[in-house]
Amino acid sequence: MSAPDVSRDIVQPRTLKGFRDFLPEAAIARERLIAATVDVYRRYGFSPIDTPALEYTEVLLGKGSDESDKQMYRFDDPGGRDVAMRFDLTVPLARFVAQHVGALGTPFKRYHVGPVWRGESPQRGRYREFLQCDFDTIGTESTMADIETALVIADVFAAVGVERFTVRVNNRKVLSGLLERLGLTDQSAAVLRAIDKLPKIGDDAMADELRTQAGATAAQTDHILRFVGFGADVQSPGHGSAALDERNTAVITAMADLVAGSVLGERGVAELDDVRTGVQAATAPGRLVIDPAIARGLDYYTGTVFETFLDELPDIGSCMSGGRYDDLASVYTKQRLPGVGASLGVDRLLAALEELADEPQPATWAPVLVTRFDAEGTMETVRMAAELRRAGIGTEVYPDLRKLGTQLKYADRRGHRFALIAGPEERAAASVQIKELSSGDATTVDRTDLVTALQRRLESPPR
Amino acid sequence: MSAPDVSRDIVQPRTLKGFRDFLPEAAIARERLIAATVDVYRRYGFSPIDTPALEYTEVLLGKGSDESDKQMYRFDDPGGRDVAMRFDLTVPLARFVAQHVGALGTPFKRYHVGPVWRGESPQRGRYREFLQCDFDTIGTESTMADIETALVIADVFAAVGVERFTVRVNNRKVLSGLLERLGLTDQSAAVLRAIDKLPKIGDDAMADELRTQAGATAAQTDHILRFVGFGADVQSPGHGSAALDERNTAVITAMADLVAGSVLGERGVAELDDVRTGVQAATAPGRLVIDPAIARGLDYYTGTVFETFLDELPDIGSCMSGGRYDDLASVYTKQRLPGVGASLGVDRLLAALEELADEPQPATWAPVLVTRFDAEGTMETVRMAAELRRAGIGTEVYPDLRKLGTQLKYADRRGHRFALIAGPEERAAASVQIKELSSGDATTVDRTDLVTALQRRLESPPR
Repeated sequence: MSAPDVSRDIVQPRTLKGFRDFLPEAAIARERLIAATVDVYRRYGFSPIDTPALEYTEVLLGKGSDESDKQMYRFDDPGGRDVAMRFDLTVPLARFVAQHVGALGTPFKRYHVGPVWRGESPQRGRYREFLQCDFDTIGTESTMADIETALVIADVFAAVGVERFTVRVNNRKVLSGLLERLGLTDQSAAVLRAIDKLPKIGDDAMADELRTQAGATAAQTDHILRFVGFGADVQSPGHGSAALDERNTAVITAMADLVAGSVLGERGVAELDDVRTGVQAATAPGRLVIDPAIARGLDYYTGTVFETFLDELPDIGSCMSGGRYDDLASVYTKQRLPGVGASLGVDRLLAALEELADEPQPATWAPVLVTRFDAEGTMETVRMAAELRRAGIGTEVYPDLRKLGTQLKYADRRGHRFALIAGPEERAAASVQIKELSSGDATTVDRTDLVTALQRRLESPPR
Repeated sequence: MSAPDVSRDIVQPRTLKGFRDFLPEAAIARERLIAATVDVYRRYGFSPIDTPALEYTEVLLGKGSDESDKQMYRFDDPGGRDVAMRFDLTVPLARFVAQHVGALGTPFKRYHVGPVWRGESPQRGRYREFLQCDFDTIGTESTMADIETALVIADVFAAVGVERFTVRVNNRKVLSGLLERLGLTDQSAAVLRAIDKLPKIGDDAMADELRTQAGATAAQTDHILRFVGFGADVQSPGHGSAALDERNTAVITAMADLVAGSVLGERGVAELDDVRTGVQAATAPGRLVIDPAIARGLDYYTGTVFETFLDELPDIGSCMSGGRYDDLASVYTKQRLPGVGASLGVDRLLAALEELADEPQPATWAPVLVTRFDAEGTMETVRMAAELRRAGIGTEVYPDLRKLGTQLKYADRRGHRFALIAGPEERAAASVQIKELSSGDATTVDRTDLVTALQRRLESPPR
């Protein structure tokens, strides 16, 4: 008999393909992004909800697309029920509102932050588990809700520190009105698909696709090209707010001409103008651009549609998208529930912020590390840390009695801003050394002045 | 042929047994609790991590108990992999640290907030999906980490607004030392199980169980009863801080007598005394009580153990528990990783806070609702709301033009504190009416003074 193979007992630590661990740097960056976004949602009166990760498959299937059905993590639970993990937060919202509308009342404004799961092929920037961060206003057709949706989107990007961004807005009723006037209503799905591809494939290939896939004539194609072309100018930056409003007004007037005579189209133009004037009145950050080429190919949307682009990284695509829909929950209730909302592309925006950032992300929320010197100093260390924390200063204590160099290396790697050193000499003199990690600068302060000194240092940026 | 049955298409909106929806009131209460807790974790230098909801079953099984294995949501994913949903955050932490220890280094201090899933029978206060909120310090044996764990627990309860609570602390090495001295080491599992039951069954039944289940003699039973009895006095409230420390010192001395001669027991007593002096030095809120009857029956723990009780609701059990362990991740790595940490009982504490609360929970984070009067006022409404939000005042706009009574009823139901009314008269006079919902009091202020007036009103408690 051979000796037992103990290594056999080790389970290889690993995650499933398409699933991620978040280490502190990445988790902190995500916490910051979500906190800033949720803060904006709250400021507009949106309230949080949560729904289960697991639901009856029948409930989640709803009227979901075949594609989402195939991507669902679906199984029989221990009680033999056919269940699945949610693949978005919209279907659960519909189920939730239908179930609780009596208690909730309308209008109902909710935000929801939570993970969703899709068994799709993992590719760069796509994961099988990812966080969604949605907000919606349910139970009103007022364009006030559309205006506020645009304002929330603009405030979110300003709140997360993006200065140059563009919220592109269109209205599906205007598009439908155009197709109605062109006699292309029956081909609208194919037309919208072609318009969606415009930024990737350009005018000529889109025209080709309109002819071959949607069966459009040369005249029809020409009309559609003219229509979506109204948005092309805003690729160039530099719009001032008044100039931009003038340009948006001109685009809306041009769109109105092309849909004149279609009741639906004219209503869409009026809604679009409401959003323009509302956003102009609130003087939102960033730019709101009326862009007839924003189609958002889902059959879901029926009015205002939004996409948001970073001016410095236009190629990454829309980082926050949404729109208005006529009826959220027809699968679950006969009560008609119109609404409008949008969803933050958390992973995409995080990647963009990382690309735009000047400095590396810290791996800790606490700016201060208290080093340890000897066992005699333990209680003074505990007291000092308690005092700093009571003053609201995030303070970590290095737990072990190690070489000072080891402790400072730890502080450096973790991204602490200051290390405090209080060895026997400092304790005898009732003083503490404050060392700034980035510069290596060290100053010694009276122990009694420590909190004030650190507060002052924390108010100014790192050297 | 009969007419098609359209009602057949309605899917009944419902959740799975043991799973919950969070409506705004409950979701806000939970957000507040988690934010206050995480704020404390951060202030002590703990950093966030996240791990996937789904892992290889082999990884999650680890050395989990048979019970947790049976409760797992386990299935074959679309790629045929044997996967399961995590049933706690401890096993994923062990896997995570083993996998990333090179990048993380030690000491490693993390917190983790996330849902876990257990297919157990739902009962009052027990759910199949619930949120965990853990913090741990990995890679150090220093009692500094044990001291800080006790301080974090105390700060969490103070931060969530609980004034009267008790953190009960023991050390498993002391218990092991006692059993060693009594010759009961081989029966330690049965003894710990009996001690765990003490609060529920009382002295006599525990003594019975020690005799029948652990095979203890009358003398052994007597020793154990004396030992755990040292904690009995603290059922009565009213300890001042100095008196409490005196009492804790006396308990530790008494415990030391009973384990004298056991190396393990003496080390446990020294560790316990470190925690006592450390917490005393930091003058933590609440009470730290050395309680030899805290056993925490899991084989997992090997040193300090913690449980936390609300003085006003002792019967609900421990709301935050944890302890020290010798080796976190032996299933996944040969590197020994000792650590200490604790976990907040989110659902239990939320239920307790609701029971202790004086006022109903609001269903919104925004204190102000702006009512609407007529279409002419729309842009002024948008401007007013934008101004308030820029000043940091959470402000919701009622989207529709409805009767004022309907809008005020909405504000009342949602828990807004103030409603703003600006009809044609107010607009003509450049003024706004501020209505406090709880009292019905209304005052009219100049439009230009609105932000200042509201800021002042928000600083004082509701009338």
